Order: sequence, then structure tokens, then C-alpha cells
Amino acid sequence: MADLTYTPPKVWTYDEPNGGAFAAINRPTAGARFERDLPRGDHLLQLYSLGTPNGQKVTILLEELLAAGHDAEYDAWLINIGESDQFSSGFVSINPNSKIPALLDLSGTEPVRVFESGSILFHLAEKFGAFLPASGPARTECMNWLMWQMGTAPLLGGGFGHFYAYAPEKFQYPIDRFAMEAKRIFDVADKRLAETQYLAGNDYTIADIAAYGWFGGFVRGDAYGDAKTFLDVESYTNLMRWGQELGERDGVRRGRIVNRKGDGLVAERHNAADIDTVLDR
Amino acid sequence: MADLTYTPPKVWTYDEPNGGAFAAINRPTAGARFERDLPRGDHLLQLYSLGTPNGQKVTILLEELLAAGHDAEYDAWLINIGESDQFSSGFVSINPNSKIPALLDLSGTEPVRVFESGSILFHLAEKFGAFLPASGPARTECMNWLMWQMGTAPLLGGGFGHFYAYAPEKFQYPIDRFAMEAKRIFDVADKRLAETQYLAGNDYTIADIAAYGWFGGFVRGDAYGDAKTFLDVESYTNLMRWGQELGERDGVRRGRIVNRKGDGLVAERHNAADIDTVLDR
Repeated sequence: MADLTYTPPKVWTYDEPNGGAFAAINRPTAGARFERDLPRGDHLLQLYSLGTPNGQKVTILLEELLAAGHDAEYDAWLINIGESDQFSSGFVSINPNSKIPALLDLSGTEPVRVFESGSILFHLAEKFGAFLPASGPARTECMNWLMWQMGTAPLLGGGFGHFYAYAPEKFQYPIDRFAMEAKRIFDVADKRLAETQYLAGNDYTIADIAAYGWFGGFVRGDAYGDAKTFLDVESYTNLMRWGQELGERDGVRRGRIVNRKGDGLVAERHNAADIDTVLDR
Repeated sequence: MADLTYTPPKVWTYDEPNGGAFAAINRPTAGARFERDLPRGDHLLQLYSLGTPNGQKVTILLEELLAAGHDAEYDAWLINIGESDQFSSGFVSINPNSKIPALLDLSGTEPVRVFESGSILFHLAEKFGAFLPASGPARTECMNWLMWQMGTAPLLGGGFGHFYAYAPEKFQYPIDRFAMEAKRIFDVADKRLAETQYLAGNDYTIADIAAYGWFGGFVRGDAYGDAKTFLDVESYTNLMRWGQELGERDGVRRGRIVNRKGDGLVAERHNAADIDTVLDR
């Protein structure tokens, strides 16, 4: 085992993957690693994603839009990040940051690329006039919580999740640091949800959908092994109430199984039946 | 020194600050720690902030709005995070997440709270119809890069900055992990800025202002000690070009000295003269 503490060099250099899950795909550079176009289906919305917390945000919103009667039909293609699909020339042209989810909106005179889950939620909410108040204080409060979610997710995922579940060893200092921050984040939501039904107030919005992508796994108990116990998520009773309520919504149940491989899951979604047949089993 | 690797307990518990800069103010809980109202000045926009990377984003936008002729007069009050000002009942009522910057907009029929730097930038851009395209693909592209900035800043700050500059010891694994990610982020921006003048395209937008808050310090060389050298920021020539150009703008020069204590800086800003007198010296 290498020394855990050290004297950093004057200039950092990249030698080789430094261990842990996903190490092989992480590099200090951006851009396409190989030439390959993306597939394209019949609908005006083409989603290239994977059913991770960030990916689920978008498929949940799309299913909620469809359930509410909007014409949000979409093709959802699987991007296998473990096999470096996100570094194809086609994917990078839609998201130069090489992260899922990425969306191509073909409904206008020119294709519009949309990347970052928060931007996709915002784009779809504005496009369909749904799940985001059109103006006034309610709109601002929704954006407050949406931005809060975007700014805290990296601490739950790249911080807590990485060091608790993926790093090659259990380093105490980073685990303590990010466990403290994760619990603080849960407490912010819990105190808010003691006062209001949803994060932005009385209405269910894209702020809730964004937050459910990440909080849902902790509420259900399928995030990062036994993290629900480690962080005592049950003690956040208002967060639990909110998470359980959202988890029962049809749009959430449908959206969160898309772009995932396995029994009861839907690797690719091209029409409603792709999900119906799995949920009805 | 405690063991660096360990077997995590079944349930994490908070014992005491776990070391490093800012340890004393970080806790696993949210909410007000004491009762105190916020001060309020004469203008319709009341900003409670500190001139950190996230704080500078907002004062830069406000100064850009004023320079462009908008009526964006504001009072900027100093929130000393080292003295726990962000945990007052007054501050928490505006931002339940207890982070700067926070804004109170008094221009409507009821006060509107705005928190998270990205939400404040968005709120002000929509309010004044500036630095954010009103519709179409250009609006989406601006939001893509704004959200990208919001999602990557925690990896530059709470990730790289914390472990490189603030943690009680130099842990190699986290430093390597976050240095790699910081350089990847710089490379994403650098490749984009090789193609376009600004992040969202031909126009200077809130996406640039958000990004400058964080990239500016690395371009100038005042972020996290010698991090500019450590991460070889000079090698990102397009990022350097963009950062140097933005750094020369009046709005940026004015905005980034607000809510900071020291020579050549402006602890509180209540009118233009507060900045003029410092810049003219």
C-alpha cells in the first residue's frame, strides 16, 4: 500500500488509474476518445443516459409529463459508462463533459443539445410549461431548490458515495467529512419538508424530481450498500415521508427503471409498452 | 495521528470537529444556531455574502448590470462565515442551507428570498432581461453551462481545494482524485473556449460569470496557494485567454473586490462610490 499522506509535488502528474471503482474510465482530459455516432429513434426527444441518480431525474420527469398528458414521447438509449460509451464522438458532441444524461431535442428548426441533468429538467419544464412555475416567487423558490440539489449532489456522490463505497480503501477522514455533509444535507431537506409538502412549497416541481434522484436511494435503502443505516436516514422523518410519497407516484415508478439492465428493468425505452410490460409482470 | 484507514462503524456518529480549516463551523445538522436579524439598507436588492468564488459571481453580475444601465443598485452586507454569521436566524430564513451568497429581493409585493449562487444569477438575469438569452437554443446552451458550473464547483472547492489546501494532512488519494477531476474540468472549458469566445457561444452570459468565480482564481494564481502551478493551469491556453479577458472587464474588477476585508477591498458596498474610492486609489 502506498503512503496515505505525502508531500505533493510542485506539479501534479497523471501516471495511471489511481484505484477504486470506475478508475479505468476517469482521466484528467476531456474530449472524444473514438469516433462513433449515436443511434437515433423516431421521437423528437432522444435521450442518451443510464439509470443512475442523475439519469433517473430525467426519465422520471418525462414519465410525469406523459402521465400529465404532454406530448413528451422519447427514445431512451443506454449509455454504458463502464464501457466508455460517454467518450464517443457522438456523445461528446451533445455533452462535451462526457456525463450522462444528455438529450437531443429535435422539435425545432435545428437540433438542440441539452446536457447536465438540471439543465435538461429546466429545458423540458419550460418547453412543456409544467413542474416549474412560470413566474414570480414560486418560480424563484423552485430554482433555489433545484440549484441546491445540483450543488449538493456531488458531495453525496463524488464525495460520500465514492469514499464510502468505491474508493480502494476506507479512508476515515474523507468518510467522516462527507458523512457529516451528507447528514447536514438530509437535515436541510428534512427541516424544509417539516414545513411544506414539497421542496419548493405546495406544488410538486422539478426540484423534487431532481432531489428524488439522489435522496430516493437513501430513503429506499438501495444507495451505496448499507448507507441508509450508516447515515441513519430513518431519523429524517419528514424526508422519509416525502420520499415514500414520491416513490409511489406512477411517473416515478416508471421513470426510475429506465436505462437499467436486469430483471424488472428497462434497458431501452422507445414507447410506453416497453415499461408497461415490465411493470405489469 | 489517528489511523487513516479503518473499518467504518455500522452507524456513523459525530463526535467533534474532525480537523482542517473551517472544521469548527461544520456540523452534521442544519438550522439556526442563534437568534439575530439581518441588517437592511435602502436598496431593493439586499445581498448577504462574502467575496469567495461563489460570492463573487453575484457581485460581478450586479456590477455588470449596473454598467449596462440596469437599475440593479444593491446593499452588500458581509457575512463572516468564520464567525458563524450564516447560522443566524435571519440568515437561515433567507437560506436554509446556511451558505453564502443569499439575496433578498424587495421589489415585489412580498420579499423574495433567493439562495444558491446559480439561482441568484438566474433570478437577476430573468429580472433584468440580461446576460441570459430569453428563448431558443441559445438559452438552453447558457443553462447547460451554468448547470455544468454548479455541478463541478463542489469538486473544485469541497474536493480539490479542501484536500489540497485545508485538510489537516496531505492525503495522497483524495488529492490525486480531485486534481485529476479539476484538470478534466479545465480541459472541458479549454476545448469549448477553443471554439467559441464565451462558454455559451458568442455572447457573454451568466454561465461565464459563474465560471469566472471559480476559474478566475486559478487563472490569476490566487486560488489555493500554488494550485495554478500544481495543476499547470497555464497549459489551458484558451481558458487563460478567456479568464484574462474577463478579468479586465470593469464589472468583474468591481464585483470581485466586494464583501472582502483588506487593502484594496470593499467590506460592504452600499453605493458605487464605495467601490470607486478603492479602485481609484
